[in-house]
Amino acid sequence: MKFNGRNVSVSPRARIGKNVRIGDNTVIYAGVDIGDDSTICNDVTLGEPTIEYYSEDAYANLPTIVGPGALIRSHSIIYAGCRIGACFSCGHHSLVRENTTFGEHCAVGTMTDIEGEVRIGNYCRLHSNVHIAQTCTLGDFVWFYPFAVMTNDPYPPSNDIRGGSIGDYTQVAVHAIILPGVEVGENCLIGANSVVSKAVPSFSLAMGDPASVVMDLRNYIVMGKGRPYPWMKRFDRGMPWNGMDYEKWFELKSKKSA
Amino acid sequence: MKFNGRNVSVSPRARIGKNVRIGDNTVIYAGVDIGDDSTICNDVTLGEPTIEYYSEDAYANLPTIVGPGALIRSHSIIYAGCRIGACFSCGHHSLVRENTTFGEHCAVGTMTDIEGEVRIGNYCRLHSNVHIAQTCTLGDFVWFYPFAVMTNDPYPPSNDIRGGSIGDYTQVAVHAIILPGVEVGENCLIGANSVVSKAVPSFSLAMGDPASVVMDLRNYIVMGKGRPYPWMKRFDRGMPWNGMDYEKWFELKSKKSA
Amino acid sequence: MKFNGRNVSVSPRARIGKNVRIGDNTVIYAGVDIGDDSTICNDVTLGEPTIEYYSEDAYANLPTIVGPGALIRSHSIIYAGCRIGACFSCGHHSLVRENTTFGEHCAVGTMTDIEGEVRIGNYCRLHSNVHIAQTCTLGDFVWFYPFAVMTNDPYPPSNDIRGGSIGDYTQVAVHAIILPGVEVGENCLIGANSVVSKAVPSFSLAMGDPASVVMDLRNYIVMGKGRPYPWMKRFDRGMPWNGMDYEKWFELKSKKSA
Repeated sequence: MKFNGRNVSVSPRARIGKNVRIGDNTVIYAGVDIGDDSTICNDVTLGEPTIEYYSEDAYANLPTIVGPGALIRSHSIIYAGCRIGACFSCGHHSLVRENTTFGEHCAVGTMTDIEGEVRIGNYCRLHSNVHIAQTCTLGDFVWFYPFAVMTNDPYPPSNDIRGGSIGDYTQVAVHAIILPGVEVGENCLIGANSVVSKAVPSFSLAMGDPASVVMDLRNYIVMGKGRPYPWMKRFDRGMPWNGMDYEKWFELKSKKSA
Repeated sequence: MKFNGRNVSVSPRARIGKNVRIGDNTVIYAGVDIGDDSTICNDVTLGEPTIEYYSEDAYANLPTIVGPGALIRSHSIIYAGCRIGACFSCGHHSLVRENTTFGEHCAVGTMTDIEGEVRIGNYCRLHSNVHIAQTCTLGDFVWFYPFAVMTNDPYPPSNDIRGGSIGDYTQVAVHAIILPGVEVGENCLIGANSVVSKAVPSFSLAMGDPASVVMDLRNYIVMGKGRPYPWMKRFDRGMPWNGMDYEKWFELKSKKSA
Repeated sequence: MKFNGRNVSVSPRARIGKNVRIGDNTVIYAGVDIGDDSTICNDVTLGEPTIEYYSEDAYANLPTIVGPGALIRSHSIIYAGCRIGACFSCGHHSLVRENTTFGEHCAVGTMTDIEGEVRIGNYCRLHSNVHIAQTCTLGDFVWFYPFAVMTNDPYPPSNDIRGGSIGDYTQVAVHAIILPGVEVGENCLIGANSVVSKAVPSFSLAMGDPASVVMDLRNYIVMGKGRPYPWMKRFDRGMPWNGMDYEKWFELKSKKSA
């Protein structure tokens, strides 16, 4: 059993919601607020102090919000100042540094490293071993695959930090590199091992080193499979249009926000 | 000293063999069976429950077998349902997810991530930072080097999961990518940073992005070194033909199985 | 609070300097010597025993030196036999294996893996997810970026281990690969995703797979930015010439050593 209350450390200045389970050896620092029905597994750290903690007497942890329904797996570390929407989950040994924001229903894989000051939308999926540099931005429904990386320093080392951005629904395949400050549009597919050095328009299949746009992704046809993109028409697992047609969901959503 | 029995949690429904050492802060869940003469270091998790654990009242951990003579280094996590042959070893912070099988004498490096439902043969060596996607298959004597990765989703994201396979004795160099469903033959060398998008016949040196077969590996000559491949003729450390000629070992093995 | 003395294990044969803080769940083995004013965070292991520990009755840990002013973040593991200069810092889940030496003021990122017997100079910065193979050498002021890797086995698998070397001030960008035994000069920039297979002269911009020298880095001009390299003229954060002109610092240093 994971939840024995063994060697757990919870700050009296943390707020723990209803029906929250906390695993053994887990540490929850001051200012953390955990939403209802969350599961925090073993050996997790929530609200990890930033570097000022070690030197400033007047240090106070920034508020850290973990939304309701979270599942934080073992050995993961979430820094102070993060604000994470509902139904977040993460793998093991993952790291989310300070002042990162997530929308709802995001998932972060094992050993993924989000370096802080990153803005991530809703329903994003970062698989294992992803690295996102400081000040990068991801839209909604963005997926990153293993060893894909966003960087932020155009002339390393420098103080000229420029995080890039990824548009809604875009997929960044395994080992792809998004160079500093690059803007990738919506509904793109960035191929495996690509190095993206300049802006990619929406609906592009981009690949190569340096990456170039090889076609409009909507024209991509797979023998015997038809057109796999936009992917939302054929994939709904864990998505808000699950069990419903994507177009129907989109229409309903548009009406609501209108 | 590692083995002080400090903050150790062992399920009464685990079976611990003879002469097994268990490090401090280690957790062993129900259904785990550890073979004799094994060393489980500090901060290790064996039999990590699968996701159903968090929501199903009737959840029961699948049996998890760790064969005799294992050496599991600190902060590694092995999920329930894995079946691991004798003399397994692993580095630190490594992850082996559910229902993965290993033959005998395998080694998994630090921060390597095996995503579950993977079948691995005997005497395989996965160095640090390797990533193997679900449903992939490795033969015997297969080696992967850092940041090499097998993927499984041809049109991400999809439900059409196709793990590829790697034949006996094949070496997959640093940062190489095996794309979904690709079959790599026996006795191949996949070059550093290659992207393998289609089947590779046995005895190939394949490299590039996309990878192509550049020569029969048996014809590869290094100035002043001769022919380094097949490697079994010049390398025996940790291999069953250690101190013996590979051909002699192969002959003896063939007779036994005849 | 990190420093509660909870579940801490410190060998009586370790030496702890003045004003050292040790985090909860941390283990410090025999032979470790921690310099004054150091902070060792939670769940850290210092002086991790080498493999002989598990089988040799007469095993004794080699001395492990952590210089004064260190900041070792949580879940990091430093093996026995390492000698680390003053003002070292590291991220989370990092690994430094046996007999590695660091000069002063070095920083190692989260999940970086230094495989042992590595020599690293002063003021080096290894970002997250870097992998350095055994017997490699780094000069002073060398930076590596995420997923950059140095390898050491020219015909894997072999016993012919040849670590390469990186000269002073050189920058190795994201996902770059330094192949075994390669010597990279001083003041180089190795481009993202490059595969460096032969020696690179000092002051080169090298990129591609295989990497080639594309220009003298001193001639590299960025529109509206001038010449970004050598980088020491425009960047001083954390460097010994901080707040001073690099040339002035260099001159003072040269006089001192004369």
